[in-house]
Amino acid sequence: MAPKKGNLLTYRKDISVVDATIRDGGLCNNFYFDDQFIRDLYHTNLEAGLDYMEFGYKASKDLFDPEEFGKWKFCDDQDIYDIVGDNDTDLKIAVMADVGRTNFKRDIVERSNSPIDLIRVATYINTMPAAIEMIEYCAKMGYETTCNIMAVSKARKEDIEAALDMVGESPANAVYLVDSYGALYPEEISVMSELYLEHMDKYGKQVGIHAHNNQMLAFANTIEACSVGVSMLDATMNGMGRGAGNCMLEQLLGFLKNPRYQLPPVLRFLEKNMDKLREEGIQWGYNTAYLLTGRLNMHPRSAISFTKENRQDYARFYLDLDQE
Amino acid sequence: MAPKKGNLLTYRKDISVVDATIRDGGLCNNFYFDDQFIRDLYHTNLEAGLDYMEFGYKASKDLFDPEEFGKWKFCDDQDIYDIVGDNDTDLKIAVMADVGRTNFKRDIVERSNSPIDLIRVATYINTMPAAIEMIEYCAKMGYETTCNIMAVSKARKEDIEAALDMVGESPANAVYLVDSYGALYPEEISVMSELYLEHMDKYGKQVGIHAHNNQMLAFANTIEACSVGVSMLDATMNGMGRGAGNCMLEQLLGFLKNPRYQLPPVLRFLEKNMDKLREEGIQWGYNTAYLLTGRLNMHPRSAISFTKENRQDYARFYLDLDQE
Repeated sequence: MAPKKGNLLTYRKDISVVDATIRDGGLCNNFYFDDQFIRDLYHTNLEAGLDYMEFGYKASKDLFDPEEFGKWKFCDDQDIYDIVGDNDTDLKIAVMADVGRTNFKRDIVERSNSPIDLIRVATYINTMPAAIEMIEYCAKMGYETTCNIMAVSKARKEDIEAALDMVGESPANAVYLVDSYGALYPEEISVMSELYLEHMDKYGKQVGIHAHNNQMLAFANTIEACSVGVSMLDATMNGMGRGAGNCMLEQLLGFLKNPRYQLPPVLRFLEKNMDKLREEGIQWGYNTAYLLTGRLNMHPRSAISFTKENRQDYARFYLDLDQE
Repeated sequence: MAPKKGNLLTYRKDISVVDATIRDGGLCNNFYFDDQFIRDLYHTNLEAGLDYMEFGYKASKDLFDPEEFGKWKFCDDQDIYDIVGDNDTDLKIAVMADVGRTNFKRDIVERSNSPIDLIRVATYINTMPAAIEMIEYCAKMGYETTCNIMAVSKARKEDIEAALDMVGESPANAVYLVDSYGALYPEEISVMSELYLEHMDKYGKQVGIHAHNNQMLAFANTIEACSVGVSMLDATMNGMGRGAGNCMLEQLLGFLKNPRYQLPPVLRFLEKNMDKLREEGIQWGYNTAYLLTGRLNMHPRSAISFTKENRQDYARFYLDLDQE
């Protein structure tokens, strides 16, 4: 097993925390957050000492109808400026750009003319060359970049290794281990983190973790990855994110020992904003259906439907999944 | 760090699974389960291939008023016989006996005249001699015994080591690592499991784990302990248990690879019985208040009150806790 880096009393200076509430949480409400929520979130992340705040996707308006989504599906630079002004702070602004869903040559301008600092390129393992093209473009425009390789619980080790070397040789600053289906156990996260770190160490690059809570392991997997050396840690307010959601920011900040991270602003944000979202009917978080898709290493879409329909026939659902 | 025992594809024959739903879940509803629930649970545990089913506490009726609690607070042998008959099965029957709350010389009879197989003696570390006295008595009466040392996240290492050797030298079959406050991280569970195993290996005895979900780590901590060699694993239906509850049986059976363990009966039990309990207003499971008491390594009683009062002022709650 991987040796541990750091211990539970000190802190590692290489760690950064990324709030992905709008981006992953936006998948629960089609990115319809009101501006006050976003402003509050920005100020909370500042007070809490976070390193990055991800605003949403840079999706192409040719592919997605702006009438069907809130503005954070598209993250126009001006919409971000309206929230953060010139953002003269230590909190960097991130967006996610999906391979094949972003008109990057049109929508991503020079960093000096944009509020954005980091562009996270999301890709499946079979579209790595397109991801590298986007990373090269974004890096040339002056941005920090990461390569977020999704759904790796379904990928073959040799393909992952090839992809890691492609990222290593690209201008990307980091690669992300993304457990899209919430299928991985901490033991597996530990082994995979080691593999990612081994490859990235060669290139002097960082590794990040983005975990999902299908089996109630998002926090455990995040701190497991962290304990072996992964250093960019994604979390969201109350775990808001697709399906079972993500590692909760309040869990993660309770764990990290760096005094720059402050839990109370996050708690105030939760009580003001997150309980209200749930009361309005926005759904996310662990349930038995997500446990079952996670356990079977499947996309959670059937569990999302099951949850929306308020079904409780778990045994039937499991049988149907197992026959897919 | 502790080396891993076994791997994720095979299974270890030394592992046994203990359903603690009535006992820990009874703390949520004062042990008022209807007989049909208990019968269903017994048959479910049989079908699911479990090793032990814990019926409740052997509390003394001199100390607790039988008018204020359901019968599983007391676990009269006849009440268990009424459910299990002569229990001619592979599922063993367990009860918990708290040090100082059990009139063991009166209420615990010869095993040959009882439906009970295993008596789990629960103790704090400062009442170990009384626990050993009970263990010796129960062993003499023919029972399997375990020593469940509670709240060890508050105990000093040297005291834990002394207690482990006391258990080792007693007739107990196993010692339990009990994270009563849900305060421990998997890294700590790993280190402590190693310590427990090291001491028990000397005496040829087993180690068990009973985790709480305050920080959403009950399942992660259970499988972490398991991965380094802990072999008696506690879980409850949907995690029902005091406050944030326990490791969920459905999570644990999804993880274990021994084909004797069957998940579908558990899923059927959940859909028939557990959602109904929640609809009736019985509360358990993770929330932000439990996260905070867990993080501060405190008894969850204040978080239980906070939850019952439907409070959402997490920041104030945290401030008050931190000043206690």
